[in-house]
Amino acid sequence: MARRMGAQTVALTNPVSVAAGAAVVGKKEGEGPLWERFDEVGQDSYFGQKSWEKAESVMLKRCFTLLCEKSKIAPSALHFLLAGDLQSQCTGSAFAARESAVPFLGLYGACSTMGEAMTLGALLIDGGAAEKVCAMTSSHFCSAEREFRLPLEYGGQRTPTAQWTATAAGAVLLCAGDCGVRVTHVTTGKITDAGITDAADMGAAMAPAAWETLKAHFSDTGRTPADYDAVITGDLGHFGHALLAELARREGVRFSGVFTDCGMLLYNAQQQDAHAGGSGCGCSAAVFAGHILKCLREGMWHRVLFAPTGALMSVVTSQQGESIPGICHALAIEAEAAI
Amino acid sequence: MARRMGAQTVALTNPVSVAAGAAVVGKKEGEGPLWERFDEVGQDSYFGQKSWEKAESVMLKRCFTLLCEKSKIAPSALHFLLAGDLQSQCTGSAFAARESAVPFLGLYGACSTMGEAMTLGALLIDGGAAEKVCAMTSSHFCSAEREFRLPLEYGGQRTPTAQWTATAAGAVLLCAGDCGVRVTHVTTGKITDAGITDAADMGAAMAPAAWETLKAHFSDTGRTPADYDAVITGDLGHFGHALLAELARREGVRFSGVFTDCGMLLYNAQQQDAHAGGSGCGCSAAVFAGHILKCLREGMWHRVLFAPTGALMSVVTSQQGESIPGICHALAIEAEAAI
Repeated sequence: MARRMGAQTVALTNPVSVAAGAAVVGKKEGEGPLWERFDEVGQDSYFGQKSWEKAESVMLKRCFTLLCEKSKIAPSALHFLLAGDLQSQCTGSAFAARESAVPFLGLYGACSTMGEAMTLGALLIDGGAAEKVCAMTSSHFCSAEREFRLPLEYGGQRTPTAQWTATAAGAVLLCAGDCGVRVTHVTTGKITDAGITDAADMGAAMAPAAWETLKAHFSDTGRTPADYDAVITGDLGHFGHALLAELARREGVRFSGVFTDCGMLLYNAQQQDAHAGGSGCGCSAAVFAGHILKCLREGMWHRVLFAPTGALMSVVTSQQGESIPGICHALAIEAEAAI
Repeated sequence: MARRMGAQTVALTNPVSVAAGAAVVGKKEGEGPLWERFDEVGQDSYFGQKSWEKAESVMLKRCFTLLCEKSKIAPSALHFLLAGDLQSQCTGSAFAARESAVPFLGLYGACSTMGEAMTLGALLIDGGAAEKVCAMTSSHFCSAEREFRLPLEYGGQRTPTAQWTATAAGAVLLCAGDCGVRVTHVTTGKITDAGITDAADMGAAMAPAAWETLKAHFSDTGRTPADYDAVITGDLGHFGHALLAELARREGVRFSGVFTDCGMLLYNAQQQDAHAGGSGCGCSAAVFAGHILKCLREGMWHRVLFAPTGALMSVVTSQQGESIPGICHALAIEAEAAI
């Protein structure tokens, strides 16, 4: 039985491990600083398909297949597949999972979806409802531009605060038992709306949500940032990360070097013309599955707080003058020793 | 600890109750056969807002407020809010929950979303991660027409197989402990794609998924339809329900009078010009929260199988020539005696 700690955190009482991870990314992501960390880098943004939407599904499906191959389990051994993406009606993940024959639960948390998927997967295992769960998410720069912004052919200018939606898919296998890297706590976020309306500044919309969830985590668990080797937000990017630092500073929390962000890690933002950094459901998923999990397994980090963030807006809500609500879900993940 | 039964079913071992329900619907739904069962009927499709999308959020928010009032709990007593809808990026529910200050998990399962929300809510409680959870979903005829079909102003003709997206919101409070109506088993569906491409015939796209999940439930639990007072699918509508009957017949299962469908219950389809019946995330949610739950509490039914179905498509996937994958999640719900 899980044990509730404070208002938003659950401490897992049965061992739940992140047993394996897989990440498949696009060409640009494969040219960034983490290039060696990904399992596959696609050289063609269409991944052999006729549309970017289909390309995203094929990329995510390939990631799922790789995860099963790497961990030597058949899809039929999975009790749940938790997945989501940014496409309308979450079809990116539904079509990727269509032939998997695994009980499927579709999620939507914008760029926080990997946090939501891993949270629910860990709780389902902790509670005995499952032994093996796959959590996976994806995003694709071209399908997201078409969904949220302008036709790529238009060649619109981007503002410095704009983030680059990653072409990336990440998947992890969560298992009952101790395989070395364990999820120990989950802190589920509340929707936080600071009134930001600029859809080209998602970092500003999400930073307050990230701060609220991190504060709740520290308050609920009695921990501080110093208890972690790394506190890694989802995709605030460079501007959002600076705002998070400011929010922390105002409340007297030392924003030390342990704080970093998946959106900052994925690209050499300036050299790669990625502006404020990466975003998209696939960004935190691929950075976690490709990089963070390896840092834990290799002994570089022993305890991290992984906190994907999302902006719960759509083109329609923005066009109707609504502000952009943010959300952030955090998971404390530990490696008992270098594996 | 939950107990797994077969490939897709989990038997809950701790008591999880459906402690309360609330349903808010539109004018047309308030003129149907279940009119007395809903808490509120809106006479204005805009619910006082300037757009149908905002109207949907306000309707769902009102439903959530009613649920809290009826069950005399503050939102702050809820450990999770699980919600979803049909709008792109699930903004209907995110904006409804924006000010609730409850840890939020957004879901997408098309019209099966209430089944997904109640499944996850029940498992989170069974596993000790929560004591009180709200599961809620909504749909709005006008926002869905704009999202999936044609501008309302166009006045397009509908085919006889077309369903009518319900303007409806439903919410339930799930609690640890025995309040009379208990969730006993959940059977999570796999994505099933029978190759249907007609977006005006969702019943045909979803019926095979419904049958696969019902078969899995009966196989995993050793039960038969005769063990239930009612087996209520989500929104297959009249045509989809007839197809389900045919699929059952082909496999030698007697499709008795216990089988019914939320999409058939919501409207007097012919008199109300609702064609094949109701659909939308709000249909099964409002029919469950308004009607099925009362039937259980009033002792009319002692054991039901509630099986919401969803079509995991979007306008984009249809325009790109894809078929329509279906999904269905089933929950066995029991009343120990008339309450």
